[in-house]
Amino acid sequence: MKALCDGNDLAEAVGKAIKATGSRTTNPVLENIKIDATPGTLTLTATDNELTIETSIVADVSREGTILVPGKLFNDFARKLTGERIELDYASDKLVLRYGDSISEFSCANVDEYPDLPMVTEAQSFAISHADLKDLISKVAFSVCQDDTRPILKGVLLEVEDETVTAVALDGYRLAKCVKPITSATALMDAVVPARSLNEISRMDGEDDGNVTVFIQRNRLRVDLGHTTITTVLLNGDFVPYRNIIRDRFETEITVPCEQFAVSLERAMLLSRDDRSNPVRFDITERLLRISSGSGMGNLDEKLPIVNKGPDLTIAFNAKYFTELLRVCGVDAITIKLNSPADPCVVLPASGSVDFLYLVLPVRIS
Amino acid sequence: MKALCDGNDLAEAVGKAIKATGSRTTNPVLENIKIDATPGTLTLTATDNELTIETSIVADVSREGTILVPGKLFNDFARKLTGERIELDYASDKLVLRYGDSISEFSCANVDEYPDLPMVTEAQSFAISHADLKDLISKVAFSVCQDDTRPILKGVLLEVEDETVTAVALDGYRLAKCVKPITSATALMDAVVPARSLNEISRMDGEDDGNVTVFIQRNRLRVDLGHTTITTVLLNGDFVPYRNIIRDRFETEITVPCEQFAVSLERAMLLSRDDRSNPVRFDITERLLRISSGSGMGNLDEKLPIVNKGPDLTIAFNAKYFTELLRVCGVDAITIKLNSPADPCVVLPASGSVDFLYLVLPVRIS
Repeated sequence: MKALCDGNDLAEAVGKAIKATGSRTTNPVLENIKIDATPGTLTLTATDNELTIETSIVADVSREGTILVPGKLFNDFARKLTGERIELDYASDKLVLRYGDSISEFSCANVDEYPDLPMVTEAQSFAISHADLKDLISKVAFSVCQDDTRPILKGVLLEVEDETVTAVALDGYRLAKCVKPITSATALMDAVVPARSLNEISRMDGEDDGNVTVFIQRNRLRVDLGHTTITTVLLNGDFVPYRNIIRDRFETEITVPCEQFAVSLERAMLLSRDDRSNPVRFDITERLLRISSGSGMGNLDEKLPIVNKGPDLTIAFNAKYFTELLRVCGVDAITIKLNSPADPCVVLPASGSVDFLYLVLPVRIS
Repeated sequence: MKALCDGNDLAEAVGKAIKATGSRTTNPVLENIKIDATPGTLTLTATDNELTIETSIVADVSREGTILVPGKLFNDFARKLTGERIELDYASDKLVLRYGDSISEFSCANVDEYPDLPMVTEAQSFAISHADLKDLISKVAFSVCQDDTRPILKGVLLEVEDETVTAVALDGYRLAKCVKPITSATALMDAVVPARSLNEISRMDGEDDGNVTVFIQRNRLRVDLGHTTITTVLLNGDFVPYRNIIRDRFETEITVPCEQFAVSLERAMLLSRDDRSNPVRFDITERLLRISSGSGMGNLDEKLPIVNKGPDLTIAFNAKYFTELLRVCGVDAITIKLNSPADPCVVLPASGSVDFLYLVLPVRIS
């Protein structure tokens, strides 16, 4: 393999691919990035068997071929290159880089050891604006289960219908749901996608602000973002039938300004009992939400002006579930709908189109 | 104690004081910040017995008094206050904060347990521009010894003469020296100041860009920065007689562009043997500096155009010592003066006023 390319292009491509190298696998060959030189193009691929990232750059290829380079070292090195033209020249297990008057050599692993990567072919697909896809992921993916007790709950359910895609994540204590319009779909379909893969998709910049196409086949999902393609395995198993969980009749319904609510809860968490459940008490009356918490360190009692369309209620929550949703919900005010101190509440935008819904379970008041 | 102050002022003052609370002491009372209310002023003080920071803000004080607040909690909490007027009201071991319609209470430790802080009085002093003091610290303090084998080497020697202050730090493998003009001095003096204290002084913003006064007495140094005062203990013992170490006759003298040199060395370090000494080889000829390094991972051979006023030389260094000095030296090009592969080199600015000097010991070439 022998090719000439721009140093900045190379650094950027390596920086994208490195995100899929296998820090969590036991197969050391997956710590490498595969570079494939074909006429006019270098294609970089990395995988950890769950997530696969493939990205390509323009290059003058004078000798085709496929090699492996050590991922972390090559990424660190490429980031220190300063935009010159770089020549990549592979011979006898070594990749030689030439730039300016200088030369570096990297010991390379045998490319035959790299696994064959499964292709996503004969897939169904849907198209969505890139901005909507990013927003969908950011509003939902943080709510997946963080531990391994039920692997399916580390994924986000995507349900594609005629004109919308619905994303749902839940961890047993809360649920996040978001609906976005799609521009086309070849079929109705659903899939449970690892949240980590979705987060990488959401962090990856596309080449333009237009639509992206998402391909889904039996056990894989692929997203094409211009010169970069991300493929992820899907999680097997049945997702929780979430529709049954979300009630639609509530007695108390309050509207709360997000920014004030968030800082108040953050202060309350600092003084709540020093355990993971961060219990914070809400006393809801006609025009006030009283937020209180306490521990040996001290206690807090704050009042927020609200609009309440229902009876008074006292209820307690893990404040973290609210601060996390407030960080991503993207609206100025939310409506919280509640029934009793033992029933989950539902959180919706206070006005405008209802693209998200959160459900939060209360904690018992001592 | 009862006082009314601006929430942003309070948050800023707590954020300054917290830097001196004792994470490294075994005395838990030093995890607190002391707040002293006198007419018109709140003074916040924290210390870890080595470094003491005292800072004051304007307040309407209606009841004088001195209290302790838990440092970390109060800092986290103050950062979440949103600029309202805050009332501090202390009664029965609790500090009550009132802001807007809200109220929080903090359990407080007994102020009698807080140590008396030593005063710096009857001190000699010198005055220096704040910018020069910051520059002096940044160019020298990184070179102190990081381990505890010789405590005096964790300090920076300050030598005050009629018109200059000289700062020196060394760790057995390298030395950093910087000279800055002073605007006045009450006496000739010297002191060895813990680098950590100097770094906190350098990070602290003064209230204006003018001069700061540095007070030195037998075992303490104090810097007044407007409303903030930083006091540090001095290190006892004799500093290394550094003047003997710095030769003034060199055979080889090269001028190197800093930016190119730095990225070249960073690349070289990535491929140098994977140990802490980061050995990188310099082959100096008439117009070229060849930088090379190698390991099982690969090897590197880069060429930098230089001006050499002396004989050729091959020598090796721990590249980290150069990258660190290049990060702070603040010039476009440096002059490196060398003798033999076993003698330390000296690094100076290539042109302009010579305010810094670095000395770096070579490593043996295998």
